[in-house]
Amino acid sequence: MTAAAASASDAILLRHDADGIATLTLNRPQARNALSVGLMAALQAELDAVKADPAVKVVVLAANGPAFCAGHDLKEVRANPGREAYAALFEQCSKLMMSIVTLPKPVIARVHAMATAAGCQLVASCDLAYAAEEAKFATPGVNIGLFCSTPMVALSRAVGRKKAMEMLLSGRPIGAEEAMLAGLVNDVVPAAELDEAVMGMARTIAGKSPLTLAIGKEAFYRQLEMPLAEAYAYASEVMTRNMLARDAEEGIDAFLAKRDPVWEGR
Amino acid sequence: MTAAAASASDAILLRHDADGIATLTLNRPQARNALSVGLMAALQAELDAVKADPAVKVVVLAANGPAFCAGHDLKEVRANPGREAYAALFEQCSKLMMSIVTLPKPVIARVHAMATAAGCQLVASCDLAYAAEEAKFATPGVNIGLFCSTPMVALSRAVGRKKAMEMLLSGRPIGAEEAMLAGLVNDVVPAAELDEAVMGMARTIAGKSPLTLAIGKEAFYRQLEMPLAEAYAYASEVMTRNMLARDAEEGIDAFLAKRDPVWEGR
Amino acid sequence: MTAAAASASDAILLRHDADGIATLTLNRPQARNALSVGLMAALQAELDAVKADPAVKVVVLAANGPAFCAGHDLKEVRANPGREAYAALFEQCSKLMMSIVTLPKPVIARVHAMATAAGCQLVASCDLAYAAEEAKFATPGVNIGLFCSTPMVALSRAVGRKKAMEMLLSGRPIGAEEAMLAGLVNDVVPAAELDEAVMGMARTIAGKSPLTLAIGKEAFYRQLEMPLAEAYAYASEVMTRNMLARDAEEGIDAFLAKRDPVWEGR
Repeated sequence: MTAAAASASDAILLRHDADGIATLTLNRPQARNALSVGLMAALQAELDAVKADPAVKVVVLAANGPAFCAGHDLKEVRANPGREAYAALFEQCSKLMMSIVTLPKPVIARVHAMATAAGCQLVASCDLAYAAEEAKFATPGVNIGLFCSTPMVALSRAVGRKKAMEMLLSGRPIGAEEAMLAGLVNDVVPAAELDEAVMGMARTIAGKSPLTLAIGKEAFYRQLEMPLAEAYAYASEVMTRNMLARDAEEGIDAFLAKRDPVWEGR
Repeated sequence: MTAAAASASDAILLRHDADGIATLTLNRPQARNALSVGLMAALQAELDAVKADPAVKVVVLAANGPAFCAGHDLKEVRANPGREAYAALFEQCSKLMMSIVTLPKPVIARVHAMATAAGCQLVASCDLAYAAEEAKFATPGVNIGLFCSTPMVALSRAVGRKKAMEMLLSGRPIGAEEAMLAGLVNDVVPAAELDEAVMGMARTIAGKSPLTLAIGKEAFYRQLEMPLAEAYAYASEVMTRNMLARDAEEGIDAFLAKRDPVWEGR
Repeated sequence: MTAAAASASDAILLRHDADGIATLTLNRPQARNALSVGLMAALQAELDAVKADPAVKVVVLAANGPAFCAGHDLKEVRANPGREAYAALFEQCSKLMMSIVTLPKPVIARVHAMATAAGCQLVASCDLAYAAEEAKFATPGVNIGLFCSTPMVALSRAVGRKKAMEMLLSGRPIGAEEAMLAGLVNDVVPAAELDEAVMGMARTIAGKSPLTLAIGKEAFYRQLEMPLAEAYAYASEVMTRNMLARDAEEGIDAFLAKRDPVWEGR
């Protein structure tokens, strides 16, 4: 655990590591986990820390309290007005969201309750997301005159255009089931089963070669932005490099010999 | 109402304004609202007019008669043959569809019946779409030797590839429910409830700041065409600009004070 | 039939032509139709052959045995190690997948059973896909240390990001119904009805003008990679060219005269 996230239960961000899984928990329950400058800085620091930590294979993003995350901290935002402060705020937030996408380890959102605005963006930015039946998702910035323009970058890459526009133009929340059908979350389970859904997937992924996961996650998002022919040229090169790694040789040999592989992360 | 859409009930395009909502109704029922050069010109003129009309917050696109829209007017098309005439036709049509996307006000399709070819493209081009249970959607150009190549530009950006290809290669219509699951329409309701579904959403959106809607809609379609990092840089700048507008300050202050905001559109 | 696919029932790739439909059947049932260098070469040769064969209107891709296709032939891969061999392998495979996309004739996957890794990529690369209820789909490379980086190029263009990442990071198979909801296949039917689902669609498409199909399929994938305005300019030009073809004139005239069109493919 880094200094940024103290072990004290009153820290705004908690970190718990077990079995190669680092769980980062937003812990501003009274503020509905609003992303204050401090909370975003703490989350950025932990993402940077887990990136460099070879013991961490998978990251889970969770939250305490009645909401998953309410988005930006509006009181704080209005207390620091002006172009410079606003630009710094959205730059910090965008960098944080990009850090989830570029982190060389899978990130799973554990969404137990309402996720709004930048909170909905957090869910959309994670590689995978699991939701409790009570969870809801909204981009309600339009209700306060501030269109959810940065959240929509992540949202519109996770769900179809008509659904994204419905959420953005109306500000209305959608339920967990609707979010799953739209592609925003992978599965919906009763609240009592949410931990097992998230940790079951996290353990499954933590059992893979971390090198392979890092190669694959980076390639996934990069090839998505290329035309087809270029994507194939790039992915073929990635796959060749992957094949030459020790873990792929071990994995294939273990598979052919019907034994379990032993990963070395190289 | 502009000269292009006379109030006479025999005009090919009707316009009705109420509560900040402009409803444009295709009115060539005997021709299944085929998009003749005249109807496309009338629709273009009204879109240009509502764009400049500060009283209009939201546009609804509806249709009279047994079909929503049957696409191009084939008799007219064949009566004016030649490369020049065809090129002018598809340029006019593409400009019309782009005008829906670039209009700085949300456009909602009210689809009560069959929408085919360029009619299906109209639905796909709108920001939101609501359909009656009887509505159907098809891109049947392949049946007459003329692949729906311009309709597919909009269709393939609204639904997945396999579904779009199924419609385009087979020419077969899909039902309203299937269209919703595919992402082509937002919701399906009994015909008797279609007006309320459309107008309920239109009224909800008309209650937002028109400046915020204009900022957000433009940013939505622009950022979709950018790589992720570029999209975030662009959206962060858009959001900073939005924050500096009077309506965002008013909206946030009203939210924090738990009162209703008063929009000024600036 | 080319030399590559002998008529002997022990050929690794079978070809059967009827009614303008060429059915290519992977026939390495004991190897779960693993894509050996030889099978990929045979498939490439047949795709090149059907491309040049005016009698073929539609291609069906099927498979014999307990699996649809298990992906690369791992024994063969490990028997030919080294950067050069790996690079050649993935280049061959990517060229094969691109050949399906660029083939000027629709390709329909007939998926009766499990499709994994490059086998799943085959399904994702086809224009349309129909699956039996027993079919499953997986990208399990991560289990052997080799991320399915080239399969994901096709997979991530057919289904949403969260679903693609779930399959890629976990390696777990999804069922046919889930694959349909995700957009990977067009429909799911009982195994006994799979032939009729595939051949019914194949016959429907084979009844269209081959020129129109070729124009439309090429334009579909090209315009998908363009920004909206560029896509419309391109598609308008395509549609103008299509209108000037004899088959479009014939199709429209037949439609207006309420008779069946006679295609000449020009």
